[in-house]
Amino acid sequence: MEITNAQIQEWLNSGDSKEYFDLLKFATVGADVNHLRDCVQCATWLKKWLKGIGAEAELILPPGGDAPSSVPVVFAEIKGEEGASTVLFYGHYDVQPADPEDLWETPPFEPSLRDGRVYCRGSQDDKGQFFAFLCGVRQYLAAAGEKVNLKILLEGQEESGSTGLFKLLAEPSFRKRLAADVMLVCDTSAAADLRPSIMAGIRGVNHFTVKLTAAQRDLHSGEYGGVAPNAAQGMCELLSSLHAPDGSIAVAGFLDGKEVPSPAELEMASAAFPSEDAAREAFEKDTGVPPCGGERAKPVFLRTGFEPTIEINGVHSGYGGAGSKTVIPCEAIAKISTRLVPGQNPRRTFEAIKEHLVAHCPEGMEVSFPEDSGLSAALKLPLSSPLFAIAEEVLSQMDSRGPLFQWGGASIPVVSALKETSGAAALLVGWGQADDRIHSPNESFSVRQFFLAKEWAVRILERL
Amino acid sequence: MEITNAQIQEWLNSGDSKEYFDLLKFATVGADVNHLRDCVQCATWLKKWLKGIGAEAELILPPGGDAPSSVPVVFAEIKGEEGASTVLFYGHYDVQPADPEDLWETPPFEPSLRDGRVYCRGSQDDKGQFFAFLCGVRQYLAAAGEKVNLKILLEGQEESGSTGLFKLLAEPSFRKRLAADVMLVCDTSAAADLRPSIMAGIRGVNHFTVKLTAAQRDLHSGEYGGVAPNAAQGMCELLSSLHAPDGSIAVAGFLDGKEVPSPAELEMASAAFPSEDAAREAFEKDTGVPPCGGERAKPVFLRTGFEPTIEINGVHSGYGGAGSKTVIPCEAIAKISTRLVPGQNPRRTFEAIKEHLVAHCPEGMEVSFPEDSGLSAALKLPLSSPLFAIAEEVLSQMDSRGPLFQWGGASIPVVSALKETSGAAALLVGWGQADDRIHSPNESFSVRQFFLAKEWAVRILERL
Repeated sequence: MEITNAQIQEWLNSGDSKEYFDLLKFATVGADVNHLRDCVQCATWLKKWLKGIGAEAELILPPGGDAPSSVPVVFAEIKGEEGASTVLFYGHYDVQPADPEDLWETPPFEPSLRDGRVYCRGSQDDKGQFFAFLCGVRQYLAAAGEKVNLKILLEGQEESGSTGLFKLLAEPSFRKRLAADVMLVCDTSAAADLRPSIMAGIRGVNHFTVKLTAAQRDLHSGEYGGVAPNAAQGMCELLSSLHAPDGSIAVAGFLDGKEVPSPAELEMASAAFPSEDAAREAFEKDTGVPPCGGERAKPVFLRTGFEPTIEINGVHSGYGGAGSKTVIPCEAIAKISTRLVPGQNPRRTFEAIKEHLVAHCPEGMEVSFPEDSGLSAALKLPLSSPLFAIAEEVLSQMDSRGPLFQWGGASIPVVSALKETSGAAALLVGWGQADDRIHSPNESFSVRQFFLAKEWAVRILERL
Repeated sequence: MEITNAQIQEWLNSGDSKEYFDLLKFATVGADVNHLRDCVQCATWLKKWLKGIGAEAELILPPGGDAPSSVPVVFAEIKGEEGASTVLFYGHYDVQPADPEDLWETPPFEPSLRDGRVYCRGSQDDKGQFFAFLCGVRQYLAAAGEKVNLKILLEGQEESGSTGLFKLLAEPSFRKRLAADVMLVCDTSAAADLRPSIMAGIRGVNHFTVKLTAAQRDLHSGEYGGVAPNAAQGMCELLSSLHAPDGSIAVAGFLDGKEVPSPAELEMASAAFPSEDAAREAFEKDTGVPPCGGERAKPVFLRTGFEPTIEINGVHSGYGGAGSKTVIPCEAIAKISTRLVPGQNPRRTFEAIKEHLVAHCPEGMEVSFPEDSGLSAALKLPLSSPLFAIAEEVLSQMDSRGPLFQWGGASIPVVSALKETSGAAALLVGWGQADDRIHSPNESFSVRQFFLAKEWAVRILERL
C-alpha cells in the first residue's frame, strides 16, 4: 500500500501535519540541560494541544529540585462514558541528541519532506509515533458514539532513563491517578515491510559499575613488572570469567528461575523472523559482523528475545593516549549491563553477579560496585489475553497479512513500571522500521507510517 | 657515615652547591613543549659550565624540525693523555613533570635544604646524580697526573623516550664521535642503606598498541545484545590469554632463547635482596599489595631481574562516564609493554605476541597493531670483566661492605643503544635510594648522596 502524491498533498494541508511540524521544531533533548527551555516550551505546547481536543491537561514537575526534575511530565485526562474502560496512553516528547550534526542533510530540528518521508530528529522516535496516535485520538473523539476514559502521559526523559517519571511514580498521589484497564504505547516497530506487530515481551535490564583496585598507586612497569598485581589484567580476567567459551553465561545463580518459552511463543517468535540463514545474513549486512555474540549455537531469534545477556558496555584502566606509558594500573572500572528474561528475579541476578565477581576477584585486588541503577524485570504479555485477541482482529482488518508477535531485546523500564502502577493490560503496537534511522542522523518517518499509527489509534479505541 | 652540620655548611658555601641549585631551578620538563625554553636555557647553562672546566662543548639539535628535535643534546669533549682510555659519561638534564604540584611542601623548582636533603624536582633524577658526578670530574681534572679522554653526553628527553637522542644515534657522523672504551652512567640506585651497587643487568623493553574491531558501529545492547560480538569482552578474553593461571607467560615463542641465570648471577642477585619473606613484606609495605603479579611461585628477586613480562599498561573500550550507556562497543584498544631478559630477541618476542593475538582473536573481530615503539634488548654486563673488578675495588675502598650487584627490572633503552654505538664497556653505578621519591612530589637528594656520587667520579676516573 503506497500512498499517492495527492494524499501527501492533502495531509500537508491538514492540521495534523502542520501541528506535527510545529512539534518537531522543539529541540527537546531531554538529557541536556541546555535544552531544558525547549522541553518546557514543548510540554506547554502539548498541554495546549491536549486542551484543544477536550482534555484536562497539566504539566507536572517531578519532585527533587535538581535539573532532571525540571523536565515536565504532561498529564491529561478525558472523561468518557460512566462505566467505560479506562485507557492510559504513554509516549515521550524528548529525543536523542542530534550529533553528529554535520551528517544531517537538512538541519536536525527543521522538518523536511522528501519522497514521502519527514526528516527531522524525533520525526519517528517518539514524536512522530505518539503524535500520529494522538491525531487518531482527536478523530476518535470527534466521531459519534460512546467513549472510553482516556489518560495521556507524555514524558520528556525517556531517552535518559525516565529519571523524573520514576520519581513521580514513587508518589502515591500520582500513582492513583494512573489506574487504568488498558495501557497503549506507540513507540515500537512493525515487522518487515510494515507488517503490523504486537510486542509480546521485552527484556528487563540492570546497569552497574564494577571497580577493581590493586596497589595504592600506579607502579612503574619496569621496577615492579612481574611482581605487582595489575588491575587492567585483573579486570580482563574477571570479566572473561562471566562467560563460558561457548558464549553461555557462567555465573552461578544468574539463570535461576529463567522460564523456557512455550511452544506457542517459540512458533510465533520464529514466524516473525526470517529463516536462520536469512537472519544471519541480514545481521551481517546491518552490522558488518556475523551474529557470533552470546550463546552462538542458538538461533538468532532465540538469543534476541528469550535469552538474557551480561554485556560489557565499557572497560577502562591505565594509559590510553598516544605512545606509551610505563605503568602498572592500580585501578580498573567496567560498565556492565544485563538483559533479563521472564522468570529471572532482577535483584537475585544482580546478587549472583556480585557474588561471582567477588569470588573470582584476582589475588591482591579488591572488587567493589560503586554505582548501579534501578532494576527492571522482563515484561511478558500473555499471548492468549482478550486484549491481544482484539488487537489481532483490528490489525488484521488494517492489513490482511495479520500481525506478527515480537519479543524485543531492548528494554523500556518505565513501561514495565507504568504497567505495574496502573494495573493495566499492556499493548505495545508501533510502526517503526529499520530505515527510519532513529538515534542516527537523518531520522525520518514516512507519511504512510503516520497514517498507519493514526488509523491504529482510531480503530483500537473504537474496540476498547 | 652521617655527615656533620659543619660539612653541610661548608658545602653550602661551595661552588658545587651554588651551581647545583642554579641547575635545579630550570624547569626542564623535556616532554612538555611549554618547557622547551627552560630546556634550551638549561642546556646553554650546562655548555657554559662544561667550558668552564676546560671542555669543548656544544649543543646539538637532533634532526627532524619537530618539537622533540628542539630539545638540545649537550656534548662535550676533554682531551686527555695521548693513548689514555676514553670515557663516555651519560646523564640527562630533563626531569619528570612536577604535578600534582599541590602535594609539594616547597615549590617544585625552588631547591630547599631541609635536614641534610635538597628538595626539588630533579634534585636526584638525574640532575643531582650527574651534576655531583661532574663536580667529581672537575676535581679530578684539577688534580695532578695523567688524564683520560672524556666525552660527556647530557640529553633532555630521557623521561620521554630519548626521542631526539635516538635520532642523533642514527647519524653516522654523530655515532663516530661517541667511540669510547668505558661508558659511565650515574642514574641508578645504591642498595639499602646506601651500600654501593653495580648494575649487572637491566631488562629490555618493547611498547605497542593493540586494537580490536568488531561491528561497523557501536550497537544497542538491548537490540543486539546476545547476538553481536562485543569488542570490550573480546579484548578482555584476548588479553587474558597472554598468561596462564599460574601467572606464567602463555605466548608460544616469546621465551625462545631466554637465558637461565648462572649460579654466580643467582647468588649475587639474591645476596643483594633481603630474604624472600622480608622482600615480600617490604613489597607489601611499599605498594599495599602482596607481590602476586607474574609467575608468583618464583621468588621476588628472580621475577624482577631475570624474568620477562607482558604487562597491560592500559585497556580502553566503550563507555566510561557516570551512569550507564546501552552500548556494545565496536572497538577496543590496549597499551602493552614487555620487559625482556638476556637471550630474548626483541623482534622475535614482538612477532610471537602478534602471532598469538592474531591466532586468539575472537570470532567476528579483527586485531591490529597501530603503534609500536623501538625495541630494546636486555643489557647484560659480564660479572667477571676487568671493569667490574676495578669498580668493585674502588667501591670497597669507599665502603667496607663492598658493592652488591643488581639486576634491574626497569629499562634504559638509550643506554643499551649508547653502549652499542660507542663500543664501550658499561658501568652503571648510582646513588639513588627509595626515599628520594623520584618521579613523585617532594623528590630529594641528600648532601651525603651528593658527596658519594662526587667521590665515586674522582675515584673511578683515577683508576681508568
